[in-house]
Amino acid sequence: MRCYIAVDIGGTQIRAALYPEEGFTPLQQMRIPTVDNNQAPLERMIQLIQQIWPEDGEVKSIAIASPGFINSAEGLVLSAPNIAGFTNLPVARIVAKRFSVPVFLGNDANLAVMGESLFGSGRGHQDILYLTISTGIGGGIISHGRLVEGTHGIAGELGHVTVEPDGPLCACGKRGHLEALASGTAIAKYVMDKRSEGRTSLFPQGSLPDGKEIAEAARKGDALSIEAFERAGFYLGRALADFLAIFNPSLLILGGGVSFSGDLLRIPLKRSLDQHVVSREYLQGLSITTASLGDDTGLLGALALQHQKDQQT
Amino acid sequence: MRCYIAVDIGGTQIRAALYPEEGFTPLQQMRIPTVDNNQAPLERMIQLIQQIWPEDGEVKSIAIASPGFINSAEGLVLSAPNIAGFTNLPVARIVAKRFSVPVFLGNDANLAVMGESLFGSGRGHQDILYLTISTGIGGGIISHGRLVEGTHGIAGELGHVTVEPDGPLCACGKRGHLEALASGTAIAKYVMDKRSEGRTSLFPQGSLPDGKEIAEAARKGDALSIEAFERAGFYLGRALADFLAIFNPSLLILGGGVSFSGDLLRIPLKRSLDQHVVSREYLQGLSITTASLGDDTGLLGALALQHQKDQQT
Repeated sequence: MRCYIAVDIGGTQIRAALYPEEGFTPLQQMRIPTVDNNQAPLERMIQLIQQIWPEDGEVKSIAIASPGFINSAEGLVLSAPNIAGFTNLPVARIVAKRFSVPVFLGNDANLAVMGESLFGSGRGHQDILYLTISTGIGGGIISHGRLVEGTHGIAGELGHVTVEPDGPLCACGKRGHLEALASGTAIAKYVMDKRSEGRTSLFPQGSLPDGKEIAEAARKGDALSIEAFERAGFYLGRALADFLAIFNPSLLILGGGVSFSGDLLRIPLKRSLDQHVVSREYLQGLSITTASLGDDTGLLGALALQHQKDQQT
Repeated sequence: MRCYIAVDIGGTQIRAALYPEEGFTPLQQMRIPTVDNNQAPLERMIQLIQQIWPEDGEVKSIAIASPGFINSAEGLVLSAPNIAGFTNLPVARIVAKRFSVPVFLGNDANLAVMGESLFGSGRGHQDILYLTISTGIGGGIISHGRLVEGTHGIAGELGHVTVEPDGPLCACGKRGHLEALASGTAIAKYVMDKRSEGRTSLFPQGSLPDGKEIAEAARKGDALSIEAFERAGFYLGRALADFLAIFNPSLLILGGGVSFSGDLLRIPLKRSLDQHVVSREYLQGLSITTASLGDDTGLLGALALQHQKDQQT
């Protein structure tokens, strides 16, 4: 039996799944923590692949979803700040040498939109914009049914567009990027900054709430927390107005933890999108939905990549 | 002999060309003014097609390049402010009914990038970003060798992204768009505004110089004119940094009158792009060039569209 191996590596855990040639129900799944003092993440990932390798049966290929800037054309992680050692690391080449099968590497948000397109919310759509809003903001674009990769495979960095020229510093070092204004981190930072400026809130001064806790406080009526989501929604809406003018998608998928905060984010986001969109035509026939693959997004995205590679050969 | 008819309609003139099935040397070319008091632009265009129709030989299809918001999927001009009557006009359907051949319609900047891709500066590149900077700013994107059209065919409106949230009003009615800050119109408006605020310049107060005259004044050392191009270059560079993060192209083509102002625009543009690009990786292997098809861009773009449609069938 021929099968695929999909791997999803993140800052917290590494997951792997074995899929049959047809369908997307895994034959087996495994997960381990990314960090271990005695072993580098790359070694741990290789070990996990070894563990999930089928005793009988042929592995057609392996695909790996990784955060960070990924040169997918060369299978190279340029930088992934949350994973030790993942800087200018030729991951695909190392893994391919170890297992003697083709290995593909992709940015996790890029693969997520491929997974959603093939197996999730995106089925039936040819032009999809995917935005994942969690610690950072990542993106993926499907045009004419195909992932927009760019010449080195680093297209789709929708979190790193300038939305407020004099805005706060982004994790990447530039100023005013969407990620610095509307990610979970940015929402939390806004609450903490305003709190330290003396604004009242359910949170004691000096506390370090995360996005989920701020969403809970907002639902209890905490004005500062509500305002933090409204601000994020405003910037997301304005950036999305630009993305619609650029791509004219029929589907917008919001993924990542922050996107599941419901009306808190969705209402100000839609209001801002309505206000900023250059022509109503871009809203006609546009569906806005949340990601549907949950925790399996990375794995199913890596599987989708292998299906696509097979079709190309 | 089988052939194609290509039409390029603009605010000033309508051009048509007859092309053979192979190659891009026209068998015949014609042009007439767009405006005539006795006849609507659509009627004049139909008449021009009739005139260029070959006496012997079969016309495979007609393609029309038009400015404005174009629903290319339905062959519909949504709005083209510079052409009388071109509002919610089903141009493709009307022309197809008249001539009984397939008729395709596309936005002029979208078709321009297809023309450059197939016959011009873009040959050999799979991921191309095209920006035309003249009265307004238009765009066209090629990903994996194919035009990014979007679900209604209105993708690529790169002039209508917000680059300065509180910036000047754009012709579209929104604020701070790239077009409102870096088009030929924006450059001229900046000079005139500063002049009326009392800044000295080679231009007398109240004069209405165009982009070409401002470029000439800048070359003579007029500080205000130089500043106007530096400002446009700054905003173009920042917007292009976003576009690189989104598309990761291997080629950036600048077209339209303003792009031929040489170092005046190019130097501040590159400086700003360098300053704002999120990662040096996006500049690696990136070529920046000017459009090469000149006046024939629209016609050759319309021809390229027909070649692509043939390949799809």
